[in-house]
Amino acid sequence: AMAGCGWARAVRGLLLDVSGVLYDGSADGGVPIAGSAEALRRIKASGLKLQLCTNETQATRENFVRKLRALGFEVSVAEVTAPAPAACGLLRERGLRPHLLVHHDLVPEFAEIDKTNPNCVVLGDAAENFTYANLNEAFRLLIGMEKPVLISLGKGRYYKETDGLKLDVGAYMKALEYACDVQAEVVGKPSKRFFESALAELGVPPEQAIMIGDDIENDVGGAQQCGMRALQVRTGKYRPSDEQHPKVKPDAYVNNLAEAVDIILQQL
Amino acid sequence: AMAGCGWARAVRGLLLDVSGVLYDGSADGGVPIAGSAEALRRIKASGLKLQLCTNETQATRENFVRKLRALGFEVSVAEVTAPAPAACGLLRERGLRPHLLVHHDLVPEFAEIDKTNPNCVVLGDAAENFTYANLNEAFRLLIGMEKPVLISLGKGRYYKETDGLKLDVGAYMKALEYACDVQAEVVGKPSKRFFESALAELGVPPEQAIMIGDDIENDVGGAQQCGMRALQVRTGKYRPSDEQHPKVKPDAYVNNLAEAVDIILQQL
Repeated sequence: AMAGCGWARAVRGLLLDVSGVLYDGSADGGVPIAGSAEALRRIKASGLKLQLCTNETQATRENFVRKLRALGFEVSVAEVTAPAPAACGLLRERGLRPHLLVHHDLVPEFAEIDKTNPNCVVLGDAAENFTYANLNEAFRLLIGMEKPVLISLGKGRYYKETDGLKLDVGAYMKALEYACDVQAEVVGKPSKRFFESALAELGVPPEQAIMIGDDIENDVGGAQQCGMRALQVRTGKYRPSDEQHPKVKPDAYVNNLAEAVDIILQQL
Repeated sequence: AMAGCGWARAVRGLLLDVSGVLYDGSADGGVPIAGSAEALRRIKASGLKLQLCTNETQATRENFVRKLRALGFEVSVAEVTAPAPAACGLLRERGLRPHLLVHHDLVPEFAEIDKTNPNCVVLGDAAENFTYANLNEAFRLLIGMEKPVLISLGKGRYYKETDGLKLDVGAYMKALEYACDVQAEVVGKPSKRFFESALAELGVPPEQAIMIGDDIENDVGGAQQCGMRALQVRTGKYRPSDEQHPKVKPDAYVNNLAEAVDIILQQL
């Protein structure tokens, strides 16, 4: 066993964030992070259970998996836990009919959901669909409801694409929360319910699972709240100032996914 | 004297909000609120001092006054206190060079200000200029500053135009505040400094002035914080739920400006 790697003991399953861990995204695809495709293969060969736990809402899971496979990652739709399917479950449970302000490529995830006469707004990372007109439309629907219901697919501040930083869904969530004086319900990381559903897919209890991500709050903080260990990779949107975060401290930092997998497999 | 109108005694000057009090705006002009042009004439004929105190940032004061005169309101540029000129004063004082995310018709107000190599962002009600690209640009400038400075021309939640409610600058301010983890400096109502400059223009101390507006927080709350009395009109964006506001209670409600002026003039 390696010294100082107690955090890697008694692991049976891994939850992996995707953007910033497996690859760096861009509007037209993205580029793999060095060593991550090989690391994914080693996880699968080791017998460890694996689930991707992503806040990706710019594509259906089918198209997301197609993109990942094109980049060299051997994953299946069943291995992806994402906010849109979780939101569909919540909408059905509560009889909610959404107005969607999401990326146009995400719309098919809501194909089976009744969207007539909306009684809530579902907000995703709509990217180019974040127009002045679309934001006003979502706002008017919310303010016109007796009790406005705003469901946000994640609450990230920003993310990094190959051409620079972009405002994430959380910024637009805050705009609508303020204008309507409501609090959004967040589906996706860091919500406890979302991590629990990813763990259920993984089939491993939290104390035997490790989350690996680049987002100190949404990945690391959220997973730790569920009783999991969590690593922050120094790739993706990681910034050195994250290591002084006032509230969240990862169980360990690793330079990248490949390094994390090396250490974990040595402890098996 | 009318019963229950003690709030109208000992008045020497009025501060009036404009949109929702004098007229309801629209992209191509707007429509006067019934009785408000006549009420404005009666104020001027009475000898009461008058100042318009607006968070309007979709036009220069010159163009704003031109629009008001076309709608039948006899006002001059000197009678308008607006955020952009106040912001220019602040930028000069502190040697700040702004990146502007404002309505294109407001840009001339900043003609004399150095805008090279920006070290702050000035945010106004940019309307159609609130595009995804422009919001990302402002965000990247801010997050790239060692100490981000965000100056917001007002912090309204929303306002009403003839074709419906629109998100106001405050919603976009919250989006950038959250993404950059900064607190904006607000120039305009409800800032105390802004009301004090309007009172200075009015030439009347706060205890002899009344603010009349349709915004429970920015007009009524802000003016009361400065020691003025404040009325809420039941026109513009007024909603019955405003009367249950948890923190702000107007000195009186009036149906519209005409009713307020009737009562005030009877007490002179």
